[in-house]
Amino acid sequence: MRETLRQAADFLLAHDHYDILTHAYPDGDTLGSGYALCAALRQFGKKARVITTALPRNFVFLAAGAEEQSFETETVVSVDVADEKLLGANKETYGGRIALCIDHHEINRVDAPLKCVDSCASSNCELLFLLFAEMGVQVTKPIATCLYTGIATDTGCFKYSNTSPRTLRTAADLLDCGVDAPAINKALFDTKSPQKLQLEQEIYSTLSYCADGRCAVAAATLDTQRRLGVGDDELEGIASLPRQIEGVEIGIILREKDPNVFKVSVRANERLVNAAQFCARFGGGGHAAAAGCQIRGSLDEVVHLLQTAAEECL
Amino acid sequence: MRETLRQAADFLLAHDHYDILTHAYPDGDTLGSGYALCAALRQFGKKARVITTALPRNFVFLAAGAEEQSFETETVVSVDVADEKLLGANKETYGGRIALCIDHHEINRVDAPLKCVDSCASSNCELLFLLFAEMGVQVTKPIATCLYTGIATDTGCFKYSNTSPRTLRTAADLLDCGVDAPAINKALFDTKSPQKLQLEQEIYSTLSYCADGRCAVAAATLDTQRRLGVGDDELEGIASLPRQIEGVEIGIILREKDPNVFKVSVRANERLVNAAQFCARFGGGGHAAAAGCQIRGSLDEVVHLLQTAAEECL
Repeated sequence: MRETLRQAADFLLAHDHYDILTHAYPDGDTLGSGYALCAALRQFGKKARVITTALPRNFVFLAAGAEEQSFETETVVSVDVADEKLLGANKETYGGRIALCIDHHEINRVDAPLKCVDSCASSNCELLFLLFAEMGVQVTKPIATCLYTGIATDTGCFKYSNTSPRTLRTAADLLDCGVDAPAINKALFDTKSPQKLQLEQEIYSTLSYCADGRCAVAAATLDTQRRLGVGDDELEGIASLPRQIEGVEIGIILREKDPNVFKVSVRANERLVNAAQFCARFGGGGHAAAAGCQIRGSLDEVVHLLQTAAEECL
Repeated sequence: MRETLRQAADFLLAHDHYDILTHAYPDGDTLGSGYALCAALRQFGKKARVITTALPRNFVFLAAGAEEQSFETETVVSVDVADEKLLGANKETYGGRIALCIDHHEINRVDAPLKCVDSCASSNCELLFLLFAEMGVQVTKPIATCLYTGIATDTGCFKYSNTSPRTLRTAADLLDCGVDAPAINKALFDTKSPQKLQLEQEIYSTLSYCADGRCAVAAATLDTQRRLGVGDDELEGIASLPRQIEGVEIGIILREKDPNVFKVSVRANERLVNAAQFCARFGGGGHAAAAGCQIRGSLDEVVHLLQTAAEECL
């Protein structure tokens, strides 16, 4: 890994005029990575900008120091992008042009001449912290703020199994750089919009259990989504709700995409049930703990189908 | 602090036959501290036991290694106890007998010949980690599990402002000792009993806003508490719910203790409103960010009283 980091550092120091690509539906890790790298490159007098399909309201603070620069793109770098498909609307412009790919996903399909991928890193920002040390970047408070946000986002504030001792030590070093972690944590993890709260209420009101309470299913119908005016932002995160209930080993959320077409998100205790295999029954897939599929039918029919499958598994 | 740690370490190594006192309504920090210290003392061939008013179901795993020992008490140590009053039912037996008080609260009122208090520590368990180094304790997996649980409990899994760089580095060292942190985090932070979920639903259904959405008030009536059969365990933590709503600067929860007697918990953005001063209007007190009071009246009356006060403050 050290060798790879050195190569990536040399590359970044040798080139200029950077477009830094983030993935579509950007989260704190890809945006934190983008704005941190942008600021780091500018420390060396280079021109750089972040290319993103969106900058969600709650992440605007990451872009605070990155005033616009105009220049002709020479070098394209991607951060936290596992596959060019995930560039979304930017794929057309940037597909095939990535010179350096920096990522932490276990499977990375980006075809680039230079790749710096560390799947042991909790987050792309944890990897960037190592890369910055190799480059001799001064980790200022704005850079540390970006990196901390990425790490906190991907680890659920150090809750998930991707949190390693190195992750925690990196976060400690970032706090030493002056990050206002409590404010970031409050905004990311302890703040709900009244809409999101209402959405959760409505979803919980549809909750039904089966298999002696070991499976729970809930739904966000089109009607609910329209009435509350909630978008993808608010719908993020709801997939984990049913699995949080004590005793639930398979938690299922249905999200009606079109009339009688449901996007199904399954979260499972992978020691008991493989969520990917469960979803494969319905033509879907994913990971052992989190997977998805799509099913057509009325809400009652789809719930019944999933509950029958869950009872067979448990 | 180093000097104090050395004195406490010498004391613990020099004495024997320990009763280790935890505070009433025990949480992960006092219990984690108790069982960690018990295991540490036994490493040196000493007799020790933990004295607690209760061992909540979700913390039973902390006591896993502590088989019963019978002996005459010689030495009494308290952990995470800020005041003898907080010993609850054990105050009668142990009041005035504490030989060593180990604590991390800013204000500690325990009268003991030897006190080891570090208010810079996020948690009592963070302080114990330093003390164990001074004693030469081998931090085994069970001890690390207890210490990690205490730190995670008191910092909200590293979310709150008491999380210092040292806190994160201590947690990293504990992970190195083999703690199954993801399982502990899931149990502590991502698990809700169906009852607790129902309780939250009912509380949210009573939510009312004032001061342009900057104050939110919700209530758990006696009727709700009885119908759901919820106790103090489930009612823990609900105080923070309204303040989590975006835009809310004062979040208030009313808990009906007796008919028309409400325990009021106030959580505030202390940069705008001092919760302690707010509660002082009603004869209560506390901290700038979290305070409480008690008010008599019908639910409607009490809500109206609080909302009027909130509108004056904001």
